[in-house]
Amino acid sequence: MSRFAAVDVIRAKRDGGRLSDEQIDWVVDGYTHGVVAEEQMAALAMAIFLRGMDSGEISRWTGAMIESGSRLSLDVSRPTVDKHSTGGVGDKITLPLAPLVAACGAAVPQLSGRGLGHTGGTLDKLESIPGWRAALSLDEISAQLDSVGAVVCAATEGLAPADKKLYALRDVTSTVESIPLIASSIMSKKIAEGASGLVLDVKAGSGAFMKTVDDARALARTLVDIGTAHGVATVALITDMNVPLGRAVGNAAEVAEAVEVLKGGGPADVVSLTVSLAREMLALAGLSSVDPAAVLASGAAYETWCRMIAAQGGDPSAALPSPSHVHVVKAPASGVLASLDAYAVGVAAWRLGAGRARKEDPVQASAGILCLAKPGERVSAGDPLLELHTDTPDAVPSALAALEGAYTVADSAPGAGPIVLGTVRP
Amino acid sequence: MSRFAAVDVIRAKRDGGRLSDEQIDWVVDGYTHGVVAEEQMAALAMAIFLRGMDSGEISRWTGAMIESGSRLSLDVSRPTVDKHSTGGVGDKITLPLAPLVAACGAAVPQLSGRGLGHTGGTLDKLESIPGWRAALSLDEISAQLDSVGAVVCAATEGLAPADKKLYALRDVTSTVESIPLIASSIMSKKIAEGASGLVLDVKAGSGAFMKTVDDARALARTLVDIGTAHGVATVALITDMNVPLGRAVGNAAEVAEAVEVLKGGGPADVVSLTVSLAREMLALAGLSSVDPAAVLASGAAYETWCRMIAAQGGDPSAALPSPSHVHVVKAPASGVLASLDAYAVGVAAWRLGAGRARKEDPVQASAGILCLAKPGERVSAGDPLLELHTDTPDAVPSALAALEGAYTVADSAPGAGPIVLGTVRP
Repeated sequence: MSRFAAVDVIRAKRDGGRLSDEQIDWVVDGYTHGVVAEEQMAALAMAIFLRGMDSGEISRWTGAMIESGSRLSLDVSRPTVDKHSTGGVGDKITLPLAPLVAACGAAVPQLSGRGLGHTGGTLDKLESIPGWRAALSLDEISAQLDSVGAVVCAATEGLAPADKKLYALRDVTSTVESIPLIASSIMSKKIAEGASGLVLDVKAGSGAFMKTVDDARALARTLVDIGTAHGVATVALITDMNVPLGRAVGNAAEVAEAVEVLKGGGPADVVSLTVSLAREMLALAGLSSVDPAAVLASGAAYETWCRMIAAQGGDPSAALPSPSHVHVVKAPASGVLASLDAYAVGVAAWRLGAGRARKEDPVQASAGILCLAKPGERVSAGDPLLELHTDTPDAVPSALAALEGAYTVADSAPGAGPIVLGTVRP
Repeated sequence: MSRFAAVDVIRAKRDGGRLSDEQIDWVVDGYTHGVVAEEQMAALAMAIFLRGMDSGEISRWTGAMIESGSRLSLDVSRPTVDKHSTGGVGDKITLPLAPLVAACGAAVPQLSGRGLGHTGGTLDKLESIPGWRAALSLDEISAQLDSVGAVVCAATEGLAPADKKLYALRDVTSTVESIPLIASSIMSKKIAEGASGLVLDVKAGSGAFMKTVDDARALARTLVDIGTAHGVATVALITDMNVPLGRAVGNAAEVAEAVEVLKGGGPADVVSLTVSLAREMLALAGLSSVDPAAVLASGAAYETWCRMIAAQGGDPSAALPSPSHVHVVKAPASGVLASLDAYAVGVAAWRLGAGRARKEDPVQASAGILCLAKPGERVSAGDPLLELHTDTPDAVPSALAALEGAYTVADSAPGAGPIVLGTVRP
C-alpha cells in the first residue's frame, strides 16, 4: 500500500491547494517508477499549469526530480561555472562563450541538448563540424575540463529521469508553457549536473517561449529562487529574442558565425551577449577581475575553441558543409529594414531542415537562413535580404510561407536596441 | 494526417477557449479509437474540469459520445419512459418505481449499473434475489417490456463506448466531479438507450455527488438542457440526500424494503419519492390522468414486480440472504434523533461489504445497515439505533469508525423535511 493515492494528490492541486513536501516526493518518485500512471501525471500537470505552484513547492518538485536519478560529480581543479539559455532563434552563444570563459580561467562543463521545434540545439550545431562527437564519458569530461577548460557534450544518462519522462509527457499534453514546470525542468537538470555557479539567459520575445519581458522576468525569478534554495549561485539575464540573434540561423552557419566572433569579428549583438554572459559567469567563479572582452580580442578564446573541438575529435580547420540549394529573398523596396521576426525565421529555418519535428528525425547540417540585413540597416529594392539554405529544395515554398509578413521595409526605423534587457539576482 | 492535433484541442480548452463542434467530434472519436492517447484525454479532462464547457459544447460532447457507439432501438407498443438517479445512500427507488409505472400503463426499460464507492448499484441489489439475472438480450428486453412493462437489466454492450472509457479515466485522474463531464456521461448513455422521455432524480446532500442544492440545481439544469437539445423530453427533481433514503442500506435489505413499499407499507420518504417520480414519468408518457398512489395502493404494482422478477429468472417469494453477523449500535442518550449522516452510513455499509472498492470486487448480498431510527424520531438511551449487517465481522470496527459523529441525539429536533426540494423543467 502506498503512502498516498495519486487521485488525492491530483485533487489537492486541482482544487487550488498546496502540495506537501511528502506528496511531491511521493508523486515524482511514483511517476519515475510507474506507480503513478502517465494519465495521472498528465492530469496533475494540467492542474499545476492552471493552478500554479508556490516557490516552496517548485523548489521541492525540482529536488524530487533531481533525487529521481544520480548527480554528476566532476573532479576539476578550476572553479566550474555553467550557463543555460531558455532557447531562441540563432542562439549560438554557447559556442563562443564556453571557450571564452575557459580562456579566462574557469572550467565550463556545458551539458547540452538537441533541438526540437523552431529553436536549434547546440549539439546539432557542433555536429556539423567534421569528426566532432557529442558523447563523452565522465572521465573524458573531467580530463578535458582540466586540460582545455571547456566541454560541450551530451548530457550523461541517469540525470533527472523524472524530468526526462515528464518533459516528453508535457510535449503531447499541452502542458509545456508553465513557469513552475519549465523552471523545475531546467533547474533539475542543471543542479543534477553539479553546477556550483549558473548563469541563465532567459529570452523574451516572439522567438522565445516567453513572449513578454514580464513573463521572462517571472521565469527568471523562479529559476534564480530554485538555484538559491538548492545552494547554487544563480544569476539570470533577460535578453531580447524578437529578432534572430546574429545573422546566421541553422547548424553549420551558426558555427561559422561563432568562429567569426572568436576571431574578433561577428555581429555586434552576438559579441555583446557573449561578453555580458561571460562577465556574470566569471563573477560567480570568483574571477571578476578578468575582462572577457580583452581575452576575446587577444585570440586566446579562439585558441581554446580549437583545442576544445579537437579534443572531441573535430577538425576546427575543416570546411563546414554547404547547402546544395540557396534561395535568395530580395528587399521589396528601398529604405530601412524595420522588422525581422525571430519566430518566423526560426520556423522557416526549421522547415528548411535545420530542426526536427520529432526526436528521431535527423537535421541537415547546412540548412538554415542567413539574415543579410538586420533591423535598422539600410536596404535597396532588389538587395538580397535573406538567404535560404537547404538540401531539400521542396521545402522552400513552406519556408517562404512562414516568412510571409515577417519583415518590413520602412522609410526610417530605429536601430537595434540593447540585447540585455535586465538582470535578476538572488 | 488527422484533421486536428490533440495538443491544439487541449491548448484551446486549457486557455479558456470554446471547443468547436469539429474539435469535439474529432477528439471524442479519436479517443474512442486510440488516436488520442489516455494521457491527452486526461489533460483535456482536467482542463474541462477547471475551465468548464458552455451548454453548446456539452450538448455536442454528449452527441459525440453517443455517436461513438450504437443506439438501442426497442420495439415496444406502449409509450416508454426512463428514470435516472445521480446516486445516493439507500436509493432503492428504481425497484418499486419501475413496476409501479409499468402497472400504470407505460413501458420502463431501466438499464442500470453496478455500484462503485459508497453508493450502491441497482443490479447489485436485485442480484440478491435467488435466480435473478441482469443480462438480457435485446429481444428479451423488448418481449418483457411488452408482456410485463418493466425491465431492470444490465446495459447492453456498445452503447457510448467513449463514455465507458472516459468514465474509467476520470476515476483515476480526479476529474469526476465536473458538471459538464457528469452531465454528458449520464445523458450520452440515456439517449443512446433510446429514451423518449426521461425523469432525473438529482440528489443534493452529504450522501450525493452534489453537496448543495445549488450545485444539484446546476447539474439538473445542464442535464435537462442536454436532453432537450437531443429531442428527449426531460424533467429533473432535486431531492434530499443528507439522510439515507428509507431505513435500509445494502443489497438484500433494500430489496426487502422495496417489497414493503410495493405491498403498501414502507418508509414515508421512499413512498413519497417513488410516487413523485412516477407522476413525472407518467406525464412524459402521456398518462397524466393515472394516479400512481392509487395504483400502488391497489397492489397492481406488486403484481407487476413479481412478474418482472420472475421473467428474469428470480423467485419473488424466495427468502433473501441474511447476514452471518449483526452488530447493534445503541442510542447514547434519550431524546430525539437529530441527525443521521447519509455519507457516513454509505461509507459504513460499503465497508461492511455492501459495495466494492474496485470494479472486479464482489459484493455481499446481506451486508448493509438498518437505520432503526430516523431524524425526528424519539429514542431512549440504550435503544437499538443502527443494525450493522455483514458476513465479514472483521469489517465492523472500520464501519463503526465511519459512523463516528454521524448521528446525534438532542432534547428536541425537527421532523423530516420534504424529500423533493425542487423541479427543473425544459
